[in-house]
Amino acid sequence: MTNEKKTGSFTLPGESGYEELTLKLAKKWGADVIRDSDGTVLSDEIISAGYGIYSTICIIRDHNQWAAQNTDKLQQSFLMTNPVVAKGNELEIPLMNDFFEEQFTINDSEDSIKYWQVYDRTTNKEVSRDKWSYNQETTSVLLKEITPWHKYTVSFMAYRIWEEISMYNHTTNNWDKEHLMQIDPMHVETQEYLLNWLDNWCQTHKETTVVRFTSMFYNFVWIWGSNERNRHLFSDWGSYDFTVSPLALDKFKEKYGYALTAEDFINQGKLQVTHMPGSKEKADWMEFINDFVIDFGKKLIQMVHDYGKSAYVFYDDSWVGIEPYNGKFEEFGFDGLIKCVFSGYEVRLCSGAPVDTHELRLHPYLFPVGLGGAPTFMEGGDPTLEAKNFWISIRRALLRAPIDRIGLGGYLHLTEPFPEFNDYIEKVADEFRLIKELHHNGSPYCFKPRIAVLHTWGKLRSWTLSGHFHETHMHDLIHINEVLSGLPFEVSFINFDDVKAGALDTIDIVINAGYAGSAWSGGASWSDTEVLEKLTQWVNEGGTFMGINEPSALEGYDNFFRMSHVLGIDKDTGAKVCHGKWSFNVEGDSTLLPENYSIKPQKNLYLTDGLAKVLAASADAPVLTAYEFGKGKGIYLASYEITPENSRMLLNLLVHSGREEFDGKYLTDNLHTECAYYPNTKTLVVINNSDQAQTTTIKTDFGSVTVTMEAFDNAILPLDK
Amino acid sequence: MTNEKKTGSFTLPGESGYEELTLKLAKKWGADVIRDSDGTVLSDEIISAGYGIYSTICIIRDHNQWAAQNTDKLQQSFLMTNPVVAKGNELEIPLMNDFFEEQFTINDSEDSIKYWQVYDRTTNKEVSRDKWSYNQETTSVLLKEITPWHKYTVSFMAYRIWEEISMYNHTTNNWDKEHLMQIDPMHVETQEYLLNWLDNWCQTHKETTVVRFTSMFYNFVWIWGSNERNRHLFSDWGSYDFTVSPLALDKFKEKYGYALTAEDFINQGKLQVTHMPGSKEKADWMEFINDFVIDFGKKLIQMVHDYGKSAYVFYDDSWVGIEPYNGKFEEFGFDGLIKCVFSGYEVRLCSGAPVDTHELRLHPYLFPVGLGGAPTFMEGGDPTLEAKNFWISIRRALLRAPIDRIGLGGYLHLTEPFPEFNDYIEKVADEFRLIKELHHNGSPYCFKPRIAVLHTWGKLRSWTLSGHFHETHMHDLIHINEVLSGLPFEVSFINFDDVKAGALDTIDIVINAGYAGSAWSGGASWSDTEVLEKLTQWVNEGGTFMGINEPSALEGYDNFFRMSHVLGIDKDTGAKVCHGKWSFNVEGDSTLLPENYSIKPQKNLYLTDGLAKVLAASADAPVLTAYEFGKGKGIYLASYEITPENSRMLLNLLVHSGREEFDGKYLTDNLHTECAYYPNTKTLVVINNSDQAQTTTIKTDFGSVTVTMEAFDNAILPLDK
Repeated sequence: MTNEKKTGSFTLPGESGYEELTLKLAKKWGADVIRDSDGTVLSDEIISAGYGIYSTICIIRDHNQWAAQNTDKLQQSFLMTNPVVAKGNELEIPLMNDFFEEQFTINDSEDSIKYWQVYDRTTNKEVSRDKWSYNQETTSVLLKEITPWHKYTVSFMAYRIWEEISMYNHTTNNWDKEHLMQIDPMHVETQEYLLNWLDNWCQTHKETTVVRFTSMFYNFVWIWGSNERNRHLFSDWGSYDFTVSPLALDKFKEKYGYALTAEDFINQGKLQVTHMPGSKEKADWMEFINDFVIDFGKKLIQMVHDYGKSAYVFYDDSWVGIEPYNGKFEEFGFDGLIKCVFSGYEVRLCSGAPVDTHELRLHPYLFPVGLGGAPTFMEGGDPTLEAKNFWISIRRALLRAPIDRIGLGGYLHLTEPFPEFNDYIEKVADEFRLIKELHHNGSPYCFKPRIAVLHTWGKLRSWTLSGHFHETHMHDLIHINEVLSGLPFEVSFINFDDVKAGALDTIDIVINAGYAGSAWSGGASWSDTEVLEKLTQWVNEGGTFMGINEPSALEGYDNFFRMSHVLGIDKDTGAKVCHGKWSFNVEGDSTLLPENYSIKPQKNLYLTDGLAKVLAASADAPVLTAYEFGKGKGIYLASYEITPENSRMLLNLLVHSGREEFDGKYLTDNLHTECAYYPNTKTLVVINNSDQAQTTTIKTDFGSVTVTMEAFDNAILPLDK
Repeated sequence: MTNEKKTGSFTLPGESGYEELTLKLAKKWGADVIRDSDGTVLSDEIISAGYGIYSTICIIRDHNQWAAQNTDKLQQSFLMTNPVVAKGNELEIPLMNDFFEEQFTINDSEDSIKYWQVYDRTTNKEVSRDKWSYNQETTSVLLKEITPWHKYTVSFMAYRIWEEISMYNHTTNNWDKEHLMQIDPMHVETQEYLLNWLDNWCQTHKETTVVRFTSMFYNFVWIWGSNERNRHLFSDWGSYDFTVSPLALDKFKEKYGYALTAEDFINQGKLQVTHMPGSKEKADWMEFINDFVIDFGKKLIQMVHDYGKSAYVFYDDSWVGIEPYNGKFEEFGFDGLIKCVFSGYEVRLCSGAPVDTHELRLHPYLFPVGLGGAPTFMEGGDPTLEAKNFWISIRRALLRAPIDRIGLGGYLHLTEPFPEFNDYIEKVADEFRLIKELHHNGSPYCFKPRIAVLHTWGKLRSWTLSGHFHETHMHDLIHINEVLSGLPFEVSFINFDDVKAGALDTIDIVINAGYAGSAWSGGASWSDTEVLEKLTQWVNEGGTFMGINEPSALEGYDNFFRMSHVLGIDKDTGAKVCHGKWSFNVEGDSTLLPENYSIKPQKNLYLTDGLAKVLAASADAPVLTAYEFGKGKGIYLASYEITPENSRMLLNLLVHSGREEFDGKYLTDNLHTECAYYPNTKTLVVINNSDQAQTTTIKTDFGSVTVTMEAFDNAILPLDK
């Protein structure tokens, strides 16, 4: 290791009017690239200062003039009216009552109406087309000859007339600008327009070295309602509902040989949320859209390359159709992927994408207020503390997997009243470059057990569930993933087909975590006996199946948890209310359970045969159990929520569930600290994840090491000296 | 009203050796009948004292000599072994490992084995008979050519060799007597034996005026396990699993034209618990057993009548096959039904049975310890306080529905150290006779709304779910039923066929209370669109649908609560995790919600369209809502548990949900008190349900009345004086 100050690998958001500040901070933070931000333009002084220049493009918006002339080429969505009960044989259903009229306008073209559907939701059967008609004047559907006292819905298609991200910024930051529309590149005319536009853009932005796409074409689904008491009717970062149009549906039918219906998207009004297992139709549609986004996207990227520029993608907002883990991502030809990160798992998601340059956009953004509206760069804010807290989540994941660049976003001048923040970012940049160099010299040491997270999406949804932590905190798995992101294990994400294809051969511990029926627990996939056979045999031969919440849960069999025979615990869904329950003693194990661990109980758990060891219980309910099955075991946790103590609990459960005994090396003895060991350079990095000074001792191949660190700080220890 | 002391209508448990005490207390309590108890015989002195004499008979036990000679005519049950995972192509499953060997012995006769089944529980398919065989020596089933890593069960038939009630008394009260066996009257030989035995019994018990059957032939199911950590594997007071035998199955096939299998009883090991909706097969089997019990039972009753005696049935323990509410009960020819009561709903159950004499056996029984093993008639016990607490539950139901007799059970001499108890029973007997006389002169006044409780069992399980309160306390409905038992409403119990047949025409409020899939919520019955149509129309026309916990819940439709369109609230089972939720303000209503009411919240409730009025919430979750639908409404409660405050809350919700405005008359203004008004005699009875003195004012047609009562006491107020 060298103490010489490194620079580079840092993207700084430049700001016109603040040229001096921009260049001063670029130097302080060791930036090699200056970027613009949405709504900002860099001045010549900055552009000519010798830095690389990123420019951001959101390709489908900011074309309002063309959009106004081509309103039939705006992006669309299926919407379903709230169910209405018929009190007679006829019923009038106004289509737009439930929806935000600034976001949607009905597409009542013939092409569109052919895809509309009216459903009797009492019978869940479609109402035949001769029983309904659309009244353009009242924008209502009229139903005739229907059954009284049944409830009915209309699924219709609407244009989206306000690009959702600008809509959000408008309403949140009180913007007073023209509503930007989003145009749909599914149309050949749109493609021609965009290719021309980009060609012109490239010609007029010679200084740009990297074009940052934000992102490609289609936003994650975000349906707004007409009532402020329920403004966000549906939000799913991972779903494809905003990609649909009559044209796309027609093309899909041509390509796949069968037609999708509105109901394939509407799904009884539930829509196709990422947290539930998807249908074959959904999988086909995702593939169809993905192929299209690559197909047209790579033309844009090629053009950027032809102008001698690099093309990066910002993996957020209108990312839909860009799947870094579907095996086709490299076809785009992107040179880099930029991920905005709040959490460690997002670092891992970024690091694992098959692309040359992996870049993180750190938080906090240089905005007056943060997510949720709390002050950041304004009076009452403490951006340095925010940065520290984000950094301790990011850093532990950075120690496990390499990242090439970091950077910030927002308005640089906002940092001026916060010199402490600027000092801290200097320290972060230095820490980052040091960690990057360690990775460059060789991978960190991993503990023996190889972990696989098993769910219906498998590799496609590696690390993330559907967007950021704060959007998915109600799912146990995001807590698990976040902890795993910084633990010294090989971690993979597999689906049920992978299990059948032999994925377990190289796995020691399988984690299945989620509520019954969810994509994360697995739902109907647990009816596949081959999956059960493979997993059972694998556990018998020494594997560990770790189930959390309602693992492997499926109704219709003798047990609700289909892996209950290796877990020794099951959940009663009602039919076993008169069955006796095994009494048990809690056999606490301090090598596994740190003080102040916490596991929320759940109702109606029971031991199947009384042989499970109850490691923890809440009142009379087991919350953590271990069960021996052949050479392997089953571990059950009633729930999982990330805390420092629970992170250590998970780590302990994992290291002690491997096929071999754990040697205790390269593990801190203080749960507020973690470490990573890089054998090639014999370097031990110890991190303090807390806001207090911490001391910890680590057993290594070179003897024990004890180190004390300030709050949030780290220690780099060369071990062979 | 007269103040003259009444006597009669009281059954006293006589005790030999305590003749003086027996006759003294008979006088004190106004007894007209003296009974023996299980295990006691009355002396001549008591028998000849001029009282009516009850004698108890448990017809199927206490025949050990005959039973020992006819072990193939003992009663039986299907049992299923715990699932075992096959680690190869073969597997040996020992049958009796899981079961209490003092209760069961394998019936491995050819007749029996033909009904055994081996199941692959991984696929939930039966294993063909050529792949398994029974080894009599090891009492195991050997499986061959099976699929490794699947799990297997054996369903087999076992004789029950220890009558369950004596088994319970043995193990609980440490009896040291011969194990009594239970013989099965399904066999003609058993029937002949029992008829002879009863004939002899009648001849030798000339003094007996009433034969009390305890009860008929078959006990409720109570399967004991081999391990003391889980002794009671399965207990359901309402199920028919202990009625099965090869002979009965053969006869069933002959009568119904199709054969039942072990799986029809075993049901994946879940068995057929009363709390879940039953199958058609179960319904047929219940009918078959019921018809048989009536068929042979009425021969026994006829014989008792032929000897000039009355026949009463004690409706408990081996009651299975006696259904007071199935429309056939009167065919038995019983003269009376005796119900042991802990709770008010059991009073109503007894009162509603179509029989001449309705008798209650009060608690506490005169035993040293009560249920659960706490001291009663011994040091540390307070039998008077127990009697008071039981009586306030019983009395409020007695005010609503007539009962003919009360009585006690147990050992009279145990009361000697508790003179206060004997004084209190004297008071209770006097109160009872007074209430009986009030009913005799005319029914009490009811409030307008007519209530129906809707569940899959309907009238058949009027008032009770499956046995006593302490066995079913985890079900909201038993709390509701207990409250209803003492409220001034007409209450009926209807099933889904009744709804279709027009039962709603005479109903103002329907209550549906239970968890999803249970018999009380309704499960698959909610897929019946005709039910939904009728209920929806009825609410529109002014009815109130009151749902508790997971009312009308069924997966597979747009909403989980199928009546959500009249409730305005639904529960997300996972697919709507990304849907926005309506925010709301809590509109508390002190006319409905007494101070200190309590409703346990449940997860994932959401308002469907934001129009439901949230009357109460816990944290951010609504727990009590009201929704207007046409002229009627939907009321939702997240849960219901009986407390004095919650009883009043339910009363308030019901009186204010009728079709007409409530006039406020004959309602106490103190929730610890209740009243009943008997218009024919213009008598108002006010009761104090608490252990503190209480004052209350009641609006009547004759002006307001204010009364103060001591703890547990009552007041009888003639209103026209």
